[in-house]
Amino acid sequence: MLKTELCLLHPGKRKKQHKWFVFVSRIYINNPMQKLRMEALQRKSLHEIKQTEKIPVVAVLENIRSAYNVGSLFRTSDAFLLQSIYLTGYTAIPPHKEIKKTALGAEESVEWHYFTNAIEAVLHLKESGFTVYAVEQVDNSILLNKMNFDPHDKIAVVFGNEISGIENETLLHCDGCIEIPQFGIKHSLNVASAAAVVLWEIVRTRLNKI
Amino acid sequence: MLKTELCLLHPGKRKKQHKWFVFVSRIYINNPMQKLRMEALQRKSLHEIKQTEKIPVVAVLENIRSAYNVGSLFRTSDAFLLQSIYLTGYTAIPPHKEIKKTALGAEESVEWHYFTNAIEAVLHLKESGFTVYAVEQVDNSILLNKMNFDPHDKIAVVFGNEISGIENETLLHCDGCIEIPQFGIKHSLNVASAAAVVLWEIVRTRLNKI
Repeated sequence: MLKTELCLLHPGKRKKQHKWFVFVSRIYINNPMQKLRMEALQRKSLHEIKQTEKIPVVAVLENIRSAYNVGSLFRTSDAFLLQSIYLTGYTAIPPHKEIKKTALGAEESVEWHYFTNAIEAVLHLKESGFTVYAVEQVDNSILLNKMNFDPHDKIAVVFGNEISGIENETLLHCDGCIEIPQFGIKHSLNVASAAAVVLWEIVRTRLNKI
Repeated sequence: MLKTELCLLHPGKRKKQHKWFVFVSRIYINNPMQKLRMEALQRKSLHEIKQTEKIPVVAVLENIRSAYNVGSLFRTSDAFLLQSIYLTGYTAIPPHKEIKKTALGAEESVEWHYFTNAIEAVLHLKESGFTVYAVEQVDNSILLNKMNFDPHDKIAVVFGNEISGIENETLLHCDGCIEIPQFGIKHSLNVASAAAVVLWEIVRTRLNKI
């Protein structure tokens, strides 16, 4: 209630409202674990995000079988302010009921393009100055913790099919392969989880630039 | 074929076989982007994983609505060699058809326990010497990139319901809150993606110990 009243008193001054709210809540409620409401999170509107400069990082999805995974990847790409998602092969594209169910609107905020196959997408990215990595376990893959991502680089990352991974032909066009260290019985992570981990690792080196 | 032959020649010496295979494949195939087969990944068997010392990290799931998300979390926990998963509240527990569909067997390799509510689980962990963090956006949350996880600490991380997050009462029992920096229109990541990111951030400081 207090927060709503402050919002009404100072429409359009979200930062100020937030500080006021934090100040008032600490006096009256005294709970540093108070969950932040949507307004306090200062998230951008769909209109604002369209005008915002993105980070030059692109996720390329090759033949992703589950549209739910595609939706999750839209949501991660929205959160990390990615420039674009390239959907390739038989990966589902928006509008799509299952993408919507996990993207929850992020399919509107993240720019996407479709390519018939991933090689086209990779070549297009390389011509545009991107270094293109595949997330795949190959002879010469580099462990994710050994990657020293340059925060100034334009980086694209290819994620492959849930069962068969990235096509061999596509791999040959990439600049290198990234492997997430894994120690259990399964040979790989879920593709949306793997993407979240790799994209976070790239984004965290750029946090002071966002 | 070559690899199979080498396996037959040197049963039980997988590392040696792998080096041989890499050596031979480089001469005859000369493809550094050659995908590694399951044997070359050196994954543990279910029997071996039960004997393996885990890292003292526990994921606590509170009222997770989607059993698919629970399954993904099992798979991530298997990959990162977590000590245990604590399933609490109305979170689905194995055996469960939907957990199986995304865990793909990891529900067998990762130790799990059920608690009626997350507070019980948190108190149990604190008594066992764990520092318990909640992944939640609160007034005093610490950004993930500012967390300096001690690789020697016993750490538990609570992940909450997909819509409402972690219960206020549970938050009050945690030692601190972690927030994943996010810059888009959505207020949060998918819970399985968020968990993958946070668990990776904890695990990568311990990679030389696994």
